[in-house]
Amino acid sequence: MKKIRLGVIGTGRIGKVHIATLVNNVPEAEVVAVADVNLESAKELAARYNIPFAGDKHTDIINHPEVDAVVICSPTDTHARYIVEAARAGKHIFCEKPVDLSIDVIRDAISEVEKAGVKLMVGFNRRFDPNFRKVREMVQAGNPHILKITSRDPAPPPAEYAAVSGGMFLDMTIHDFDMARYIVGSEVTDIYVKAAVLVDPAIGRAGDVDTAVITLTFANGAIGVIDNSRRAVYGYDQRVEIFGSKGMVSADNNFPDNHRYMSAEGISGSLPLNFFMDRYLDAYSNELKAFCDAVMGGGPVPVDGYDGLMSVVIGLAAKQSAAEGRPVKISDYAK
Amino acid sequence: MKKIRLGVIGTGRIGKVHIATLVNNVPEAEVVAVADVNLESAKELAARYNIPFAGDKHTDIINHPEVDAVVICSPTDTHARYIVEAARAGKHIFCEKPVDLSIDVIRDAISEVEKAGVKLMVGFNRRFDPNFRKVREMVQAGNPHILKITSRDPAPPPAEYAAVSGGMFLDMTIHDFDMARYIVGSEVTDIYVKAAVLVDPAIGRAGDVDTAVITLTFANGAIGVIDNSRRAVYGYDQRVEIFGSKGMVSADNNFPDNHRYMSAEGISGSLPLNFFMDRYLDAYSNELKAFCDAVMGGGPVPVDGYDGLMSVVIGLAAKQSAAEGRPVKISDYAK
Amino acid sequence: MKKIRLGVIGTGRIGKVHIATLVNNVPEAEVVAVADVNLESAKELAARYNIPFAGDKHTDIINHPEVDAVVICSPTDTHARYIVEAARAGKHIFCEKPVDLSIDVIRDAISEVEKAGVKLMVGFNRRFDPNFRKVREMVQAGNPHILKITSRDPAPPPAEYAAVSGGMFLDMTIHDFDMARYIVGSEVTDIYVKAAVLVDPAIGRAGDVDTAVITLTFANGAIGVIDNSRRAVYGYDQRVEIFGSKGMVSADNNFPDNHRYMSAEGISGSLPLNFFMDRYLDAYSNELKAFCDAVMGGGPVPVDGYDGLMSVVIGLAAKQSAAEGRPVKISDYAK
Amino acid sequence: MKKIRLGVIGTGRIGKVHIATLVNNVPEAEVVAVADVNLESAKELAARYNIPFAGDKHTDIINHPEVDAVVICSPTDTHARYIVEAARAGKHIFCEKPVDLSIDVIRDAISEVEKAGVKLMVGFNRRFDPNFRKVREMVQAGNPHILKITSRDPAPPPAEYAAVSGGMFLDMTIHDFDMARYIVGSEVTDIYVKAAVLVDPAIGRAGDVDTAVITLTFANGAIGVIDNSRRAVYGYDQRVEIFGSKGMVSADNNFPDNHRYMSAEGISGSLPLNFFMDRYLDAYSNELKAFCDAVMGGGPVPVDGYDGLMSVVIGLAAKQSAAEGRPVKISDYAK
Repeated sequence: MKKIRLGVIGTGRIGKVHIATLVNNVPEAEVVAVADVNLESAKELAARYNIPFAGDKHTDIINHPEVDAVVICSPTDTHARYIVEAARAGKHIFCEKPVDLSIDVIRDAISEVEKAGVKLMVGFNRRFDPNFRKVREMVQAGNPHILKITSRDPAPPPAEYAAVSGGMFLDMTIHDFDMARYIVGSEVTDIYVKAAVLVDPAIGRAGDVDTAVITLTFANGAIGVIDNSRRAVYGYDQRVEIFGSKGMVSADNNFPDNHRYMSAEGISGSLPLNFFMDRYLDAYSNELKAFCDAVMGGGPVPVDGYDGLMSVVIGLAAKQSAAEGRPVKISDYAK
Repeated sequence: MKKIRLGVIGTGRIGKVHIATLVNNVPEAEVVAVADVNLESAKELAARYNIPFAGDKHTDIINHPEVDAVVICSPTDTHARYIVEAARAGKHIFCEKPVDLSIDVIRDAISEVEKAGVKLMVGFNRRFDPNFRKVREMVQAGNPHILKITSRDPAPPPAEYAAVSGGMFLDMTIHDFDMARYIVGSEVTDIYVKAAVLVDPAIGRAGDVDTAVITLTFANGAIGVIDNSRRAVYGYDQRVEIFGSKGMVSADNNFPDNHRYMSAEGISGSLPLNFFMDRYLDAYSNELKAFCDAVMGGGPVPVDGYDGLMSVVIGLAAKQSAAEGRPVKISDYAK
Repeated sequence: MKKIRLGVIGTGRIGKVHIATLVNNVPEAEVVAVADVNLESAKELAARYNIPFAGDKHTDIINHPEVDAVVICSPTDTHARYIVEAARAGKHIFCEKPVDLSIDVIRDAISEVEKAGVKLMVGFNRRFDPNFRKVREMVQAGNPHILKITSRDPAPPPAEYAAVSGGMFLDMTIHDFDMARYIVGSEVTDIYVKAAVLVDPAIGRAGDVDTAVITLTFANGAIGVIDNSRRAVYGYDQRVEIFGSKGMVSADNNFPDNHRYMSAEGISGSLPLNFFMDRYLDAYSNELKAFCDAVMGGGPVPVDGYDGLMSVVIGLAAKQSAAEGRPVKISDYAK
Repeated sequence: MKKIRLGVIGTGRIGKVHIATLVNNVPEAEVVAVADVNLESAKELAARYNIPFAGDKHTDIINHPEVDAVVICSPTDTHARYIVEAARAGKHIFCEKPVDLSIDVIRDAISEVEKAGVKLMVGFNRRFDPNFRKVREMVQAGNPHILKITSRDPAPPPAEYAAVSGGMFLDMTIHDFDMARYIVGSEVTDIYVKAAVLVDPAIGRAGDVDTAVITLTFANGAIGVIDNSRRAVYGYDQRVEIFGSKGMVSADNNFPDNHRYMSAEGISGSLPLNFFMDRYLDAYSNELKAFCDAVMGGGPVPVDGYDGLMSVVIGLAAKQSAAEGRPVKISDYAK
């Protein structure tokens, strides 16, 4: 079997996850190179997973002659630049989200990718979750009217993180914006955000919010709502419900076990899987398999640069709506 | 609308339930007479529910000229005698279970009922529970292989109760024996009982058991299992599962509300409805409606004297199996 | 036991429900008079439930010397007028929702009630649903952040009904506005409505909508969302979820039975109880008991004129928000 | 990190699963040799997983100087012999169940293992399922009274398989016997089996059964019931429920996704994971990790030779009980 040879840039949390997934669960993948500004970290992973090359520069990967495709797991502000360089080097690209926080920068990167004729896939892993995928499949049989996404994190990030990340809408809700487009199968046209600081006042002082209810309008007429919180004390809360002409499909949280205990005090059970590494374990495998399949089979990637662009467009519109207290048209951003 | 006129004998717990049900929920019923050895109790109920006559003798009811049908809620050892007297007086009869603890006595009572041409219905209310009824309906589409009944009480009766009641198999499991015949739609041919005293040693000293796993064989080839306990600390546990050629149908417990609470400590919810008055509220209404319908419409009663007989037959076989530690044939009893 | 003597005005669908409930399930109530413009209907009910008096004028009830309290079940446009007349006659009042579609008219009615020193309770029955009540009780232990209400009808009313009813926000969502205030325990301060016509174009031509996602802001900082549809093909969909500092409590739909069927084709079960008469059966009993308790015990009614006012205020704000496509302040209406 | 070096004997279905698990999911394991009578199969796996040695004799593994422990996945009738040889060669042993179908042969093998001072673990993988493990943990807080195990296969094996396998009790129920001992934490003392041929007459002609309800008595007084079928049309059905002094804990089936669909036709969802490879994926990893941990850490294995013996003892007693239609004492076999 011919394999696709991959090079990974960045060995932080998500880089480690992707390398382990590629090695253990994607038989058609071969990780041939890894790089990180922290060379020790790259070397350690190379040793652990029997990867022939470890370097400390992203160009070590992009220019590596045996690398067919690069997996970009470096900090957000490097994504677009590395995409452009990899495209120019003729490599296929898997890039973590977000592509960038600037619409123009994303557009330029996409344009270079198209010029080079390589594939670019953006890491919206939740599309590959078995529950949400099943919901999406079933939606295609009907005409969606109302979408509901619940997305709550178990604990807030440090308040100062908002400045770097672009804030809750761009670091957390961005996944939900992509999920909304995916599930409904139509573009978002308008957004209205009601947000608040109810979890941690420090987040408010840093200029961000930690709680939100977001109304979306879709081109096909459907209406959606996303509710977000930075702190669900019971753990990671990730649910989807879609309602339409044929009925309703929903997907609940995932749980570490399904035991039910009935005692004199009441009925109890286990809390949901606590965070994204556990909850989306299968999704991480599935997305990398899908990328390798697309590159090897020659078909389109399932999440492309435009998807990466639109999630940021909606995120920026969300920030404006929250700031100005009024509905905002997506077309004012996406033009 | 013509109504059926009923007289109730016995105003203990179940008598009170039946009178309230008849007055409030069975529009075709009119309670015209009530009797209890405690005349005050009969008078109080008569006043409360606007019942024209209250007496202290069962013959007050059986011989009452306006009574079309009698509802027997007196102690078990009077059931068969009152059935016979009511039958001879030409009255239709609804009788609480068990008809009697002696097979011969039950047979004689049934024989008198048949001779008189009146209807006799035995109060196996669980057949009228909406969940179990739904299960029974669905079973009719397939070929049953395995039946599972879980039946556990929230708390044991006083140990001395066993002597009067005939023991756990005749006062508690008798309902499950009837449910087994009803759900599977076939007669029990063999029984094996493994029983123990795990809840209260006083029950053992009184010669009874408080925990049991009972294997049933049915004439149609199906196998069944009933598990019983006198004390489920989480409340009344009443479930049924039937498995066969077309799949499996199950019915869970009923709950007072369906709230789900997810906190930092875990997921929790409400315990099941705690005892039979709450759990089988609808079933009590439905069974009395069914009796009134059968009497007024002229059709057969849904639970007849033979059903009353068979549950006692199986109960006595259960006692013997538990005592002798071996499987017992029902035909050895039912001949 | 002393009883409260009630007179019922209006014997349409809800009038019939209330009379049956009062007679069968509220022992402390005695229905002594009933009136309807259709005298035959009033007489029929009087005969059926043994009610001494039947008339064809609301004044027959209000001026009836034995009536302690009136139950107003007549058309909406008579509610406020009958409240005023009943209050002046010194009668306590239970009135179906909405009190009126005009804020000023409601205010005047409340003012007359206060002047007369009688009690006025408005029929928001869902507050008395065991599930929602349990949720409300549990909310009181924490600090609510996000409220979610799903409220979908099984089938739309005739399009022309919108003109009479005031439209979806005033005939259907009004219940959800009251539920929102009840569950969160705080007043609504702002509303934003995104509405559409996705179910039936005739509803749109009649000037109404049939689908909506509604964002609410509360005085205590919480944010809420209501989603509505006039047609859920699977039946009546009534759910609540509240999230906050201590976790999340939710209440699912109610179902006619809890059977689960696993066949070669998949897992299946029964659809929810189909409409409000079935779903809110207990709630109707509970609310009338609560009214009778308040009148007899002298305490405050649990849903008063101000609650009746506020649900209409929010409903009118909703209409304006949907029409103008912008958030609206409740205080602009409620001043 | 020091690793444990393993050699695998047998590359059939379960051998392949164990090799993939060891390579991908057990970082402390290193598979250094593999053998199968079909040399091509051994070579193919060696190539695929980068295993240095492939042979066609079990002695290639047992005598391999770099092998610390052997994993026996060959046919049942070789298990005991290979255990003895491996023990004499000083290797630790992981052996698939059953160890053998003869009690004496198993005893002799255990005796050799003890003499050699090596570790022997038997592959009862279900003990390592996260659901059942959670149930076991919770049981330890109370005093068990009633155990219920449901274990149904999606489809029967070929009828002739019974002759080789020892029949349903020794090839299928053997897992449930082990689970029963594990969950209750006490030895089985008596067994009564009611079995039937309801799925496939060919199974009956081959001298086996396909449906059973099995009553177990435990030394600690608890009573248990196992129900088995060779064909559940809805898929693999694996559930456990344990009831006792502190309440009840249960574990439901596992499902491929948790979507719920409500349409005009009813509520539906996905069927359970269809067979053991999917259902017990985690369990296979966990058991091999546990074996490697025990070998490296020097502690006892969690499922030892005695566990392997007792499951066969109970299985043989089950066959006798079914054949003779009476309860059988385990001590008659285990002496």
